[in-house]
Amino acid sequence: MIIVKIGGGKEINLKSIINGLKSVNDKFIIVHGANALRDEIAEKLSFQKKVITSQSGYTSVFSDEQTIDLMMMAYAGLKNKRIVELCQQNGINAVGLSGLDGKIIQGKRNTGIRVREEGKTKIVRDFSGKPQNININLINLLLNNGYTPVLCVPIIDEDNFAINSENDDIVALLHSQLKAEKILQLIEAPGYLKDKNDSASLIKFIPKENLEKVESEVEGRMKRKIHALKKLLGAGSTTVIISDGRIENPIQNALNENGTVIK
Amino acid sequence: MIIVKIGGGKEINLKSIINGLKSVNDKFIIVHGANALRDEIAEKLSFQKKVITSQSGYTSVFSDEQTIDLMMMAYAGLKNKRIVELCQQNGINAVGLSGLDGKIIQGKRNTGIRVREEGKTKIVRDFSGKPQNININLINLLLNNGYTPVLCVPIIDEDNFAINSENDDIVALLHSQLKAEKILQLIEAPGYLKDKNDSASLIKFIPKENLEKVESEVEGRMKRKIHALKKLLGAGSTTVIISDGRIENPIQNALNENGTVIK
Repeated sequence: MIIVKIGGGKEINLKSIINGLKSVNDKFIIVHGANALRDEIAEKLSFQKKVITSQSGYTSVFSDEQTIDLMMMAYAGLKNKRIVELCQQNGINAVGLSGLDGKIIQGKRNTGIRVREEGKTKIVRDFSGKPQNININLINLLLNNGYTPVLCVPIIDEDNFAINSENDDIVALLHSQLKAEKILQLIEAPGYLKDKNDSASLIKFIPKENLEKVESEVEGRMKRKIHALKKLLGAGSTTVIISDGRIENPIQNALNENGTVIK
Repeated sequence: MIIVKIGGGKEINLKSIINGLKSVNDKFIIVHGANALRDEIAEKLSFQKKVITSQSGYTSVFSDEQTIDLMMMAYAGLKNKRIVELCQQNGINAVGLSGLDGKIIQGKRNTGIRVREEGKTKIVRDFSGKPQNININLINLLLNNGYTPVLCVPIIDEDNFAINSENDDIVALLHSQLKAEKILQLIEAPGYLKDKNDSASLIKFIPKENLEKVESEVEGRMKRKIHALKKLLGAGSTTVIISDGRIENPIQNALNENGTVIK
């Protein structure tokens, strides 16, 4: 079993990725993003992203109903169905599902954030949360009958509402149940870079036991990424390969362990 | 087996429809439209609908790549996933699929339309076609495992491209394979009206054998509808109930055979 996480960046070469997957003999599952597409549609719709600042000074995106609408259009709609179409053109019998479908990715909605507004403290709650459980029966039902699940947000919360969630958390949860031998993460870079502006600074290998140390050494977005990797490898032994999703042969390149390898 | 076709009009009361479905004991499949939503998104995106006129003077919508993008956003994205969410909130374990997913609705792409452009005759081909085959194995796999399929366009053509198609044709094809006892069509009217501006002109009953005669008597949109019904009943014996999708209890009302009944 391989989990293939496809980033939602503009330069991701979807055609080559899906074309490369047709030669993979293992069963696999796709989890994809669509952030560039979402932003593009949001701009066309003149949709303003809402950002809130918590009382403790922490800034985050506020996922209101309209944010979920947009997510359904961009992730579960346009991106998911174009990926499914590409899969079918490559002989992969894909079934594209959001986390809502058959409750395939169930989560717990965040309880709310304490904010100061007009001199008053109040708690605001958006449609976001953490994945908690996978409908493994449905995944196996599809896989065992020759279908390849292509998964994306939104996921479904404990009251059956659509919520936003992080793909890193979804992949970690999938791995905890599916025990994937390999997890490919296809991004808009050759792998993890020490200096994000210098592709020669590629980190080729991180032994699993060094993740803790690396996490303490890096900052910002990279710190979050390493934290997600720690969680991922904590969910069960595997080889994670973070590799370039922009090139001509991204799958073969990743399977050859070009990029950042963590095991 | 019941097939529930939900119209894509603005006034369709989705909440009450899905709420009504939870009391239905038969297995059922949902096929839904989203035309009002599609038009709304198209307007926001300043998307111009392309209309072409064939050499023989027949006007039709030209479904280019952007039309399919829009369809994926509106039908397979926002509308489909909000219906699935409503289903889950009513204890119906829905799985929302476009015709691409698992090739559940396979079609044949139209060969092209002959048009005159700048004094020359040429053939233009869009992404539209007719459904030809249903992946009945996938439908049964879902139904037999407790999942309710929620289907929408686009469908998949013989070269694995996404194409637009008519829901009436999809429902007829589904019925030809599933042999539904009842087909509910929930629309923005009390049923078929002799005079579309007078709800008292409701046609309460059309015996199957009269469809031919009725088709010859009516015009325009209604003619197309009656033609579709002929096709539907030709695909196997059933009771078709065309009923109001705007009211408080649309499913019970339809099952009580309020509206236009054809059998």
